[in-house]
Amino acid sequence: MLAQTPEPPYYAVIFSSLRTPEDGVGYAATAQQMLELAAEQPGFLGVESARAELGLTVSYWSSLEAIQQWRDVAEHRLARARGHKRWYQAFQVRIARVEREYGWSRPGRGSDGPIAPADF
Amino acid sequence: MLAQTPEPPYYAVIFSSLRTPEDGVGYAATAQQMLELAAEQPGFLGVESARAELGLTVSYWSSLEAIQQWRDVAEHRLARARGHKRWYQAFQVRIARVEREYGWSRPGRGSDGPIAPADF
Repeated sequence: MLAQTPEPPYYAVIFSSLRTPEDGVGYAATAQQMLELAAEQPGFLGVESARAELGLTVSYWSSLEAIQQWRDVAEHRLARARGHKRWYQAFQVRIARVEREYGWSRPGRGSDGPIAPADF
Repeated sequence: MLAQTPEPPYYAVIFSSLRTPEDGVGYAATAQQMLELAAEQPGFLGVESARAELGLTVSYWSSLEAIQQWRDVAEHRLARARGHKRWYQAFQVRIARVEREYGWSRPGRGSDGPIAPADF
């Protein structure tokens, strides 16, 4: 699902990663736990994630302070340490201020309803 | 591959999308063409892309002007129009200013060399 974020400005943490080939034990469960835990934090606005060869997770936050607080959550620290040790070959973290946003969705699409046929 | 970006500040375009289930004809080829064409534009710094249920493409640019110029490239306009018509159920575009960046890669990893065993 696309994240439903408020009017900018707000902040994005762009986390890009390459996985190690050899050790995936516990990765999926920890990643899911971190998404759920992030969603409980003050200032959390949403998250979007996809993985192919490269993994991309973009989380959205109301302020730099909220991002800093999430960094300091004990379970998050522990998961990052495991990521260093086992799961990641390389990663990059970028903190960015979202200044402008626009979107589009196909007419007739409801979040729970049926997908309407394209009318053009 | 993770994008090799310069010291911030620079800009990111975060493109999040949901695909239509019914029509993938031409999508992969067009997506690849757009990545290659973007890489030729002035101010292009890099791109990272992954797709699972949701697609995420983050492209990096030296300035807002560079982003605007890329938006105006004719082939890009055409590809966006096709995306509206056929390929996307919904998408969101966020323009963000990257303010801080840090990364890590496993010791011993070269871009072409063998992967070293983790030493911790």
